[in-house]
Amino acid sequence: MSYNNFLYLLSDALKNNHIELALESIKTFKAVDIADVLTQLSIDQSQLLLKHLPERAYVFSYLPPNEQVKLAKVMPRNTLAEIIGEMSSDKRADVFKCLDEEQQNALLPALAQAEREDIRQLSSYMEGTAGAIMSSEYATLKPQMMVKDAIKMLRLEAPDTETIYFAYVLDEARKILGVLSLKQLILAAEEQNINELMVTDVLTAYVDTDQDEVAKTIARYDLLALPIIDRQGMMVGIVTYDDAMDVASEEATEDFLKVGAVNASTKLSIKSAPILQLYQKRVFWLVFLVFGSLLSGIGIAHYEDVIAQNLVLVFFLPLLVGSGGNAGSQSSTLMVRALATGDVQFKDWFNLLGRESLVALCLGGTMAVAVSLLGYFRGDEMVALVLALSMMGIVLMGCLIGMSLPFILNKVGLDPASASAPLVTSICDATGVIVYLFIASMILF
Amino acid sequence: MSYNNFLYLLSDALKNNHIELALESIKTFKAVDIADVLTQLSIDQSQLLLKHLPERAYVFSYLPPNEQVKLAKVMPRNTLAEIIGEMSSDKRADVFKCLDEEQQNALLPALAQAEREDIRQLSSYMEGTAGAIMSSEYATLKPQMMVKDAIKMLRLEAPDTETIYFAYVLDEARKILGVLSLKQLILAAEEQNINELMVTDVLTAYVDTDQDEVAKTIARYDLLALPIIDRQGMMVGIVTYDDAMDVASEEATEDFLKVGAVNASTKLSIKSAPILQLYQKRVFWLVFLVFGSLLSGIGIAHYEDVIAQNLVLVFFLPLLVGSGGNAGSQSSTLMVRALATGDVQFKDWFNLLGRESLVALCLGGTMAVAVSLLGYFRGDEMVALVLALSMMGIVLMGCLIGMSLPFILNKVGLDPASASAPLVTSICDATGVIVYLFIASMILF
Repeated sequence: MSYNNFLYLLSDALKNNHIELALESIKTFKAVDIADVLTQLSIDQSQLLLKHLPERAYVFSYLPPNEQVKLAKVMPRNTLAEIIGEMSSDKRADVFKCLDEEQQNALLPALAQAEREDIRQLSSYMEGTAGAIMSSEYATLKPQMMVKDAIKMLRLEAPDTETIYFAYVLDEARKILGVLSLKQLILAAEEQNINELMVTDVLTAYVDTDQDEVAKTIARYDLLALPIIDRQGMMVGIVTYDDAMDVASEEATEDFLKVGAVNASTKLSIKSAPILQLYQKRVFWLVFLVFGSLLSGIGIAHYEDVIAQNLVLVFFLPLLVGSGGNAGSQSSTLMVRALATGDVQFKDWFNLLGRESLVALCLGGTMAVAVSLLGYFRGDEMVALVLALSMMGIVLMGCLIGMSLPFILNKVGLDPASASAPLVTSICDATGVIVYLFIASMILF
Repeated sequence: MSYNNFLYLLSDALKNNHIELALESIKTFKAVDIADVLTQLSIDQSQLLLKHLPERAYVFSYLPPNEQVKLAKVMPRNTLAEIIGEMSSDKRADVFKCLDEEQQNALLPALAQAEREDIRQLSSYMEGTAGAIMSSEYATLKPQMMVKDAIKMLRLEAPDTETIYFAYVLDEARKILGVLSLKQLILAAEEQNINELMVTDVLTAYVDTDQDEVAKTIARYDLLALPIIDRQGMMVGIVTYDDAMDVASEEATEDFLKVGAVNASTKLSIKSAPILQLYQKRVFWLVFLVFGSLLSGIGIAHYEDVIAQNLVLVFFLPLLVGSGGNAGSQSSTLMVRALATGDVQFKDWFNLLGRESLVALCLGGTMAVAVSLLGYFRGDEMVALVLALSMMGIVLMGCLIGMSLPFILNKVGLDPASASAPLVTSICDATGVIVYLFIASMILF
């Protein structure tokens, strides 16, 4: 049975109010797959199915934000409040932030006091910080407990925590004294005191730490969760590895799109984003880059005489100029990614510039040989000389520009990933035109 | 104390054989941080410190491959065998694969029989598959156990498994019957039978599944580990979430560099890779793209007369042609990333092409207005008309090429990420030259 057949049967069952049959057909599905199914159904059917799902809050949290808002609009207020009440605290705050003010105001009175307070707290943190992705449901222990009591306590806490595989030992002021894994607890003697067992050097992050930093720490130390503290040192939440994976993927997408000159500060789906939004994300750089190209044009205009007397030069213009842009894109891409993964730091720049010059000379040399042969056959040995020298110069300039731009952008407070391939290409193009035509005017006239 | 001060003191302590002092100075460090420290020390000091570290196998597994090989060369064979014996099975196989044949042959006799067999098995899987990143240390249970026996068994297995948070229930033939989390076990009644408790719909992957697929499954279902089976359905290993995070980061880097026209099938560090390797990774695309640029040159040569009679056209050439390339890079970047994250599938192409055309018309329209104003001031209203029409045509072509190239590459069996910004730019440039000069020759002559 194909997926489309299945959807048809499911939708048919829902249309005829055969809930049992519908539930039976998806009983082997995982929550995220059920969420996918919901997005394929009509809003009424989707709502009907969701209402009867055993793990509805969990499924609901996997829906894309726009689907959540759509469902929130049509659902009875009490059902919505129930589902939102069952969600984990971080996902609950995410949904809440996506609702419009009217929906928020309708929802709040239907929630329990504790949930209201939690939403207020979690949705107060800035997007992109640890606070905005953390969960306030984590297991805590007191320092004087014995192992067997700790396990008992974790059993009690389990239904209300995201994970019981790590528990944080807090003092009266909610400052972190240590961390214990369930593995340690299971392996330890029952009567042992947990403050002899716990690890006391606990990695933490502040609520206002950049989410990217948090994700990197979790990945670097292979953590299951990172505890988050406020500026007074009080524990306020945890970020779990699965949220860190999502953040890492988002950040990679953001950098990826930036390198393609698409402004990607917020999530963007080419499949479902409104046309106007896609337009907005792209038009800035396109128009901005026109000025880069204008520089090339001005360079060409300046050497109009040289060109007019040697039209063969125009033939090689795209090739030479393009090679500089391509070499530059390579350099900036390598650099932006190495900075993002932490493979290089800004202090390495000077060393890297030396290495890059060597690579550029090798690349430029190879290209110069190739292009001078072409030049010799289409022009003469003087043209070949102009081309060889220009190619060396242009590739070298391109590489150095590509390597330096991310650093310069960072120095002036911009994201190094804004050194997009098109931006580097534009700058290298303009430089290339001038280098080429300058060398040509020197040698040929 | 700065990091450099610290390194100086540590190195001094090691030089004078003050091991206690050296160990004291790094006692709060996590394994990955100690690995970083080791790479900063001389090989002798690094070896000395490593030998005395309490978690030396764990630290060793965090070293970059080239450092591992360097240390393996100078270490006494027995120490090396001890360290490698203590490592987790997947990391052990990774190190083994990096050693040269002589080192491998020297090492093997010093290892225990079980470790040898494990290495032979794990290093037989192709790079890039689940088999190559999986670990053979996982917790297993038998179906007829009671909860309390299962917990006892996990206690026994704990020292030899990567995680005890998930245990797989296997039948006699090592086929997976179900999976249980330690959380479920802790919460269940002691006398309950585990085959009533276990989850029977277990997600798995084959040993020869692409590592990227495995990482995506782990991220999609928020798993801690994914069991790996062979083609006969026998369980042979697990891939854990931390390995999945590393894979996701590697794959993102690979795609990122490809978009910058850097051939990135293997790991590449701009900081430490040999100059020649960097050269090799880049020269292919640079030379290949020359042919793309040659097409532009041929286009220009074909319209030499048009240009000669209207040199003002050359002034706008980089601007128009560049805009097409930039718009095309944006489209291909959006598409390549959306394909990589799974946001779009290849079947969506036709729909996306429609959406992209609308976006392209908006973008082209905006750019056409801008450029025709420029054209009017520098030329006349006919030039303005040529520029406006060309800009619309070029941006539209650019977007459609950028959107389609990843699909076409995939159809002919290539990686869609090879649709790099420079490749798209080259193709759009050539197309742009022809569109521009064709329109100019039609209108102006």
